[in-house]
Amino acid sequence: MDDKNISQAVISRLPRYLRYLGELKDSNVERISSQELSQLMNVTASQIRQDFNNFGGFGQQGYGYKVNFLYDEIAKILGINKTHHLIIVGAGNLGQALANYMNFERRGFHFTGIFDCNESLYGKKIRDMYVQPMENLETFVKDNDIDIAVLTIPKTGAVSVADKLVKCGVKAFWNFAHVDLNVPSDIVVENVHLSDSLMKLTYNITRKEQETDTQ
Amino acid sequence: MDDKNISQAVISRLPRYLRYLGELKDSNVERISSQELSQLMNVTASQIRQDFNNFGGFGQQGYGYKVNFLYDEIAKILGINKTHHLIIVGAGNLGQALANYMNFERRGFHFTGIFDCNESLYGKKIRDMYVQPMENLETFVKDNDIDIAVLTIPKTGAVSVADKLVKCGVKAFWNFAHVDLNVPSDIVVENVHLSDSLMKLTYNITRKEQETDTQ
Repeated sequence: MDDKNISQAVISRLPRYLRYLGELKDSNVERISSQELSQLMNVTASQIRQDFNNFGGFGQQGYGYKVNFLYDEIAKILGINKTHHLIIVGAGNLGQALANYMNFERRGFHFTGIFDCNESLYGKKIRDMYVQPMENLETFVKDNDIDIAVLTIPKTGAVSVADKLVKCGVKAFWNFAHVDLNVPSDIVVENVHLSDSLMKLTYNITRKEQETDTQ
Repeated sequence: MDDKNISQAVISRLPRYLRYLGELKDSNVERISSQELSQLMNVTASQIRQDFNNFGGFGQQGYGYKVNFLYDEIAKILGINKTHHLIIVGAGNLGQALANYMNFERRGFHFTGIFDCNESLYGKKIRDMYVQPMENLETFVKDNDIDIAVLTIPKTGAVSVADKLVKCGVKAFWNFAHVDLNVPSDIVVENVHLSDSLMKLTYNITRKEQETDTQ
């Protein structure tokens, strides 16, 4: 499969397709036409066909898409057909929320350790993990084949923790700290900057108000 | 200011500019050249100039940008120069994490109420709010001029809660529930689908692995 030239816009739509296909699978729907999928997802059928053509189509004229097959192919493209081992650095509310989110586990994301520098949290049980001190971090990562680190710590500590984890072999960061990590280019970083998202919301509120004012 | 035709790509970069400018402000830096800003943010100076040209420039040749002025202008565009009143629906870990995030308050986002359907949480103090039962929702929204509702509830309840809130006058949703809300087109929705973000991460991990394999 050659997906070298797929735009980030298409990629960012794939998880949504997967979500809808997962729900169809759960409802035992075996096949669906692009028209039906289009109505369900509120996007044009031509958009769906174009998106899927990036990966060789998946569909058959007059038959539609096989839900299971399509789900599995998109899962493969998104890399969630494999198991991933994650640690969470930062056992505050956000770290705990992520640890407890069952759907990640269903998709092959296994949270195996959670760490904090706050002594009062040591030993606290979160799901089936006990909060460990930061001093255990490096040994744990090396011993447990961790590929993804989730950073739910304040921005002041995030950059140095990330540097340390890269040295231990972590290849990817899911970064909730409100700072840009400074890691080598072969390391994958996905930022979730929540306040950026909140500002996009207020930008769009302002736009709507301006539209209303000028009507 | 006419920003009708600014692309979503430019808009989505503005919060990051604001973050860096905020840090410069906090460090009492008064002006900065596009070259310096470029190095700091690791984007090209030409990208910065192009982005700012969308809003009429802000810079002066040979002088650079005035940090305070630029910060204020971008804040205005993003609509965070005004105060917003928010409620949180869902007082679990994620709702609590958002309620406790001090930086939102600094940017003019005031969390005024938090609600849950779990009786054992009623009256629990989160920051300076007490968790209220869902029955209070509609009266509270009408009495407190709420413009944004944050949905941190499971997807099963989110659609109907959103419908109810739209009827009470809520104009915008920051939606963490893993479902597409079905609200009228004049309502603003910003989705934070965390598992979508995690899949983008694994997509990029898979891509990097393929690159390494073919080298």
